Amino acid sequence: MPELRKDPISSRWVIIATERAMRPTDFKSEPQLIRGGFCPFCEGNEDKTPPEIMSYRERGTQANSKGWRVRVVPNKFPALRIEGKLNKHGEGIYDSMHGIGAHEVIVESPKHIASLTELEDKQVEEILWTYRDRLIDLKKDRRFNYGLLFKNVGTAAGATLEHSHSQLIVTPIVPISVMHEMNGCEEFYKYRGRCLFCDMVQQELATGTRIVYDGEMFVAFAPYASRFPFEVWILSKVHASHFENLQKLEAEELAHVLRNVLLKLEASLEFPPYNYIIHTTPFTLGEIEHYHWHIEIIPRLTRVAGFEWGSGFYINTVSPENAAEFLRETDIEKKAGSARS
Amino acid sequence: MPELRKDPISSRWVIIATERAMRPTDFKSEPQLIRGGFCPFCEGNEDKTPPEIMSYRERGTQANSKGWRVRVVPNKFPALRIEGKLNKHGEGIYDSMHGIGAHEVIVESPKHIASLTELEDKQVEEILWTYRDRLIDLKKDRRFNYGLLFKNVGTAAGATLEHSHSQLIVTPIVPISVMHEMNGCEEFYKYRGRCLFCDMVQQELATGTRIVYDGEMFVAFAPYASRFPFEVWILSKVHASHFENLQKLEAEELAHVLRNVLLKLEASLEFPPYNYIIHTTPFTLGEIEHYHWHIEIIPRLTRVAGFEWGSGFYINTVSPENAAEFLRETDIEKKAGSARS
Repeated sequence: MPELRKDPISSRWVIIATERAMRPTDFKSEPQLIRGGFCPFCEGNEDKTPPEIMSYRERGTQANSKGWRVRVVPNKFPALRIEGKLNKHGEGIYDSMHGIGAHEVIVESPKHIASLTELEDKQVEEILWTYRDRLIDLKKDRRFNYGLLFKNVGTAAGATLEHSHSQLIVTPIVPISVMHEMNGCEEFYKYRGRCLFCDMVQQELATGTRIVYDGEMFVAFAPYASRFPFEVWILSKVHASHFENLQKLEAEELAHVLRNVLLKLEASLEFPPYNYIIHTTPFTLGEIEHYHWHIEIIPRLTRVAGFEWGSGFYINTVSPENAAEFLRETDIEKKAGSARS
Repeated sequence: MPELRKDPISSRWVIIATERAMRPTDFKSEPQLIRGGFCPFCEGNEDKTPPEIMSYRERGTQANSKGWRVRVVPNKFPALRIEGKLNKHGEGIYDSMHGIGAHEVIVESPKHIASLTELEDKQVEEILWTYRDRLIDLKKDRRFNYGLLFKNVGTAAGATLEHSHSQLIVTPIVPISVMHEMNGCEEFYKYRGRCLFCDMVQQELATGTRIVYDGEMFVAFAPYASRFPFEVWILSKVHASHFENLQKLEAEELAHVLRNVLLKLEASLEFPPYNYIIHTTPFTLGEIEHYHWHIEIIPRLTRVAGFEWGSGFYINTVSPENAAEFLRETDIEKKAGSARS
């Protein structure tokens, strides 16, 4: 019997179609890798990207030259432009404004690696600090209200370059997906006086069946109403509204948990295409009790069809309990050695 | 300069990235066609599907045998099951119920055709009547609250069979996409006392730049805040909350408009993968003034990446004005002759 489950955050329902369930080995994902050839993100090719916005680099080396460890550049084909005024205006019933915002690329390594998991925990931690530094910098610009950090890996997940990188799109508008989450959390807070995400973390830890990685400060689990097979969320165990307020010790553990979960996905699903997204609190809000930043990791193993587009329902053929069990039991030490050739 | 535009219905923003704009010929869509081989939907293979729920067939012919024009069968791999009780229950903060619902397939022709456009207007009209008959029948079941009619064409749009067909998924829950639309319309109605979709139709007709087909009773246009290149919506010019209350003359024209718009898309974009979805009013609501049923047609030319998933923003590289102009000027008479080989 399929099961309908409701995500309490967004009020979205999903169909867990357990009878259609497939084993992880049944997912034949599209190849994650994109192409060889010239890579503008590799060390030595710094002049092939727009000039860098910032980099973590060895003392004494020059901007836009070798010596960097993480490098942030404007997207060469930005979805939004950094210069200009918003020029908000109406056209009858419609609202419009100039496409002002920031669109940056975080190049995660000077070496041509296809996955962030090829880095050490320490290097992943530097990527997290880069995310934070960019958010804090762009927050100062009063035209902007949100920074969305995300990663596309593999063609099916929308990537066009193989070299491991993330992106940051900063917008004058709070994205509607975040608004819907915040609205759901606010209603719960009004009613119960607690953070819904915190309650979720407590329940997941108590239940245990959907846990993928249980750390000291962070927990990774397959959400109860997972939209996609092997969807995993990472949350802080203590309440935290803003990603950018990460403590040093938290960043260390988060780097480890993130890399660990990605290693498990790569080992279980043979380097699937995936996205991850960080949802945090909008720029103009200070510490709030009802919203909790988190990372959503979405392997892109299945195609989204008309029903999903038209309804916002998702049909998920792998129950989160099965997905979590499989990921928990995946031995990344053993598999990591036999990684991509 | 890219432009941010807001869809007044759902409050979703899109980025019209005009500088990234491509010509229609730049879209190299994945092949729409799926495979040859045995087709369970072709006339003569009636025993290869579950027994039919209904069919329009020649007088004197037997169910589940030749002689039908349109045939409705249960989906062989249903997302939801028709038998059973909802068994709504909670698990701590989570809500769940049995996956009860209907999942039907509308086979649109006894002949193996890959597109509904290969049918005459009259035959397309019969498909619309089939949609209506199924909605009206399933509405009687008090367990259900919504019927979502949709069509997947091509692998990239989630289709697994080539033979032209639509699907109906009936759910106990109103889909969240429809809820968001209805909430937006209700707020507008409270404020202005009018249907937001009716206002949209008026403004589109007055502006003209986004019109794709202007009929007597129906209008097709590229929505102001199109999420996807060449997205087209079809709406009744007079207010209508329920698809299933379609008048006979309206059905005749709608069949013509729908086929015409699809022909234009096929001729312009070389048989793109696409979805269409009918959004109508939930079963338990009678005539309402603030929601307006409509068809959303979504060519699937681009991949949805992490930013879209994470934000609900969409980046559209073709302005709806350019898309509409191109579709208006597409000569389907000329192209129809040189259709798929």
